[in-house]
Amino acid sequence: MHFSIQRDKLIEAVQDVLKAVSPRTTIPVLTGIKVTVTDEGASFIGSDSDVTIEASVPLTEEDQQFVEVIEEGSIVLQARFFGEIVKKLPNSTVTIQVLDHLNTQITSGNAKFNLNGMDPEEYPQLPSIEEENVYQMPIDLLKTMIKQTAFSISTSETRPILTGVNWTIEAGELICTATDSHRLALREVNIEGGDGEKRSIVIPGKSLSELSKILDDTNSSVDVVLTERQVLFRTPRLLFFSRLLEGAYPDTSKLIADSSKTSFEVKTKEFLQAIDRASLLAKEDRNNVVKLSVNEGEADVEISSNSPEIGKVYENVAVKGIEGESLKISFSAKFMMDALRAIESPDIRISFTGAMRPFIIKGIDDARILYLIVPVRTH
Amino acid sequence: MHFSIQRDKLIEAVQDVLKAVSPRTTIPVLTGIKVTVTDEGASFIGSDSDVTIEASVPLTEEDQQFVEVIEEGSIVLQARFFGEIVKKLPNSTVTIQVLDHLNTQITSGNAKFNLNGMDPEEYPQLPSIEEENVYQMPIDLLKTMIKQTAFSISTSETRPILTGVNWTIEAGELICTATDSHRLALREVNIEGGDGEKRSIVIPGKSLSELSKILDDTNSSVDVVLTERQVLFRTPRLLFFSRLLEGAYPDTSKLIADSSKTSFEVKTKEFLQAIDRASLLAKEDRNNVVKLSVNEGEADVEISSNSPEIGKVYENVAVKGIEGESLKISFSAKFMMDALRAIESPDIRISFTGAMRPFIIKGIDDARILYLIVPVRTH
Repeated sequence: MHFSIQRDKLIEAVQDVLKAVSPRTTIPVLTGIKVTVTDEGASFIGSDSDVTIEASVPLTEEDQQFVEVIEEGSIVLQARFFGEIVKKLPNSTVTIQVLDHLNTQITSGNAKFNLNGMDPEEYPQLPSIEEENVYQMPIDLLKTMIKQTAFSISTSETRPILTGVNWTIEAGELICTATDSHRLALREVNIEGGDGEKRSIVIPGKSLSELSKILDDTNSSVDVVLTERQVLFRTPRLLFFSRLLEGAYPDTSKLIADSSKTSFEVKTKEFLQAIDRASLLAKEDRNNVVKLSVNEGEADVEISSNSPEIGKVYENVAVKGIEGESLKISFSAKFMMDALRAIESPDIRISFTGAMRPFIIKGIDDARILYLIVPVRTH
Repeated sequence: MHFSIQRDKLIEAVQDVLKAVSPRTTIPVLTGIKVTVTDEGASFIGSDSDVTIEASVPLTEEDQQFVEVIEEGSIVLQARFFGEIVKKLPNSTVTIQVLDHLNTQITSGNAKFNLNGMDPEEYPQLPSIEEENVYQMPIDLLKTMIKQTAFSISTSETRPILTGVNWTIEAGELICTATDSHRLALREVNIEGGDGEKRSIVIPGKSLSELSKILDDTNSSVDVVLTERQVLFRTPRLLFFSRLLEGAYPDTSKLIADSSKTSFEVKTKEFLQAIDRASLLAKEDRNNVVKLSVNEGEADVEISSNSPEIGKVYENVAVKGIEGESLKISFSAKFMMDALRAIESPDIRISFTGAMRPFIIKGIDDARILYLIVPVRTH
């Protein structure tokens, strides 16, 4: 293998695939990045078995030469060192050449690195993906969806299926659901492509967070290819494979009540800031609990918190149209703030069905997003 | 105590004094910030016994009212909560009032916090400082000096005196020296004031780093007031007290050789980048050692590093005027990079007196700064 490549393209590709490489892997070859050169350009692969990322750099693009191939071939280079080295090379062009055995030379300007490579034959093959179930959606919408749901997954392995986000696709609509059993996030979007059949998969939350980091903020389209055990997100430059979680995702539809006993409208940002302040004194407490008091017929609600050793805090927040009964309810300030930060709508409606029942937060201008929070008993 | 204050001024003062407060203190009252209101304005004090910071907010400045005093007095508030609360208050004005006993109310907009305060009588008095030895220097010069020397202190407590920076003042000149016995930084500057007598103190490196963080980057002047056990840095808005380290600072002048057997000039930035690249493969190794080869009569020097398991790197860097004998020497890349980053001069001269002897780095345009590095034996 022997080729030259523009340093900026090399850095971008290596930084992207590094996101899949874990220093804690038990498979030695996966501590490396696989570099492959063909007559189409250079490709770089990183993987931790769960997630596999391939970044490609074509020979040319819009009359600019990115890669010059002198000899095709492949090598696996230690990800940690390769990643550090490419960032610090002195010249805008880099030459990479396998000299003998696996000894690989990286040259840029006066700097010469000789790295001990690993055998590319040992590197796992990319998963094979059938092209039957291919959907398309804009990248920025995909990233927004991930941001609005992935934070609600469980971080505990006691119910592994809850560490993923459930995607249900049917008739041009995608519903994403995430829950840790104390709170739930639900987001609906339109999606193109596919054969109209209903499909349900569970994607690890960690994979979605990594995907979100390597996709640029553009409104160009990404292909989503579904199979039994894998999902592939594909752009012209990147392939992002993630394994799927196995098992049945719980039916969460029964949790979401149709009617409410108490509800009100409030400005999202004002409510968020008041909750944030009330939570300051509740931080000692792991639960980080604040209390909300709603009184029938009033124009504001009270948010309060009390930590006997430190002090107490209370604040009235103006609301619109309190409907139904008076209510006192306690909940996790963190869960509420996570939800409020994810809602883009400037106004929200919160609907309760009692102090001990889960309550629902919806954007006023956006019926396709919903959060549910289970309250905390405080006696 | 009862007063109102502009939120921005309150945040600035509290953030500054927080830098002196340590959560690990064994003196309970020092987990707090002392707030004092007099007819001159409000003051805030934080301390960890070693460093004490007082930030003042005057009643008015340039026709703007910052503080309105309703009742003079003082209180000590939990630093951690007070610091978090002031940052998140909703309104541009804040009222702080001691209600009864030590119960203190902070009000801003609709938000009301009641904090359990601590007795201000228990808070230690500020050190008394005599005004005999007062020097003046520009703040930006003080900050540059700290940046150029403090990184060379020892982080080990085996010789506590080396965890400080030695300041020697004589005849209008201040010499700052820091060494961990493997490297040394030396910086000379002019200083105004004082009585011309020679004085030598050792200021904890940690105090200087904290001081550097809270001083704004201006060329206005700071007073430096020396006493037996304390140094005070004083601006109109801030008092920064630090205890001094006790004991004799070692005489380092003999380490700095007058003559050299090998020397050359090189571009600071090019040399730094080449060392940085060579150090990439040496990171496994705690010592982070790189090798430099100088050959009589050549126009460049070679920097190299070799980690048998990972690979090797070598790079030639153009130099000017190699003088004296050929030399191979190994040293810590980290020490060299620290020194090169601290030197503002675009060109440096490095002077050696043999492969086993400390060598010296000086800025070509700046004879008042000097670094010394002890080489590493590699066989």
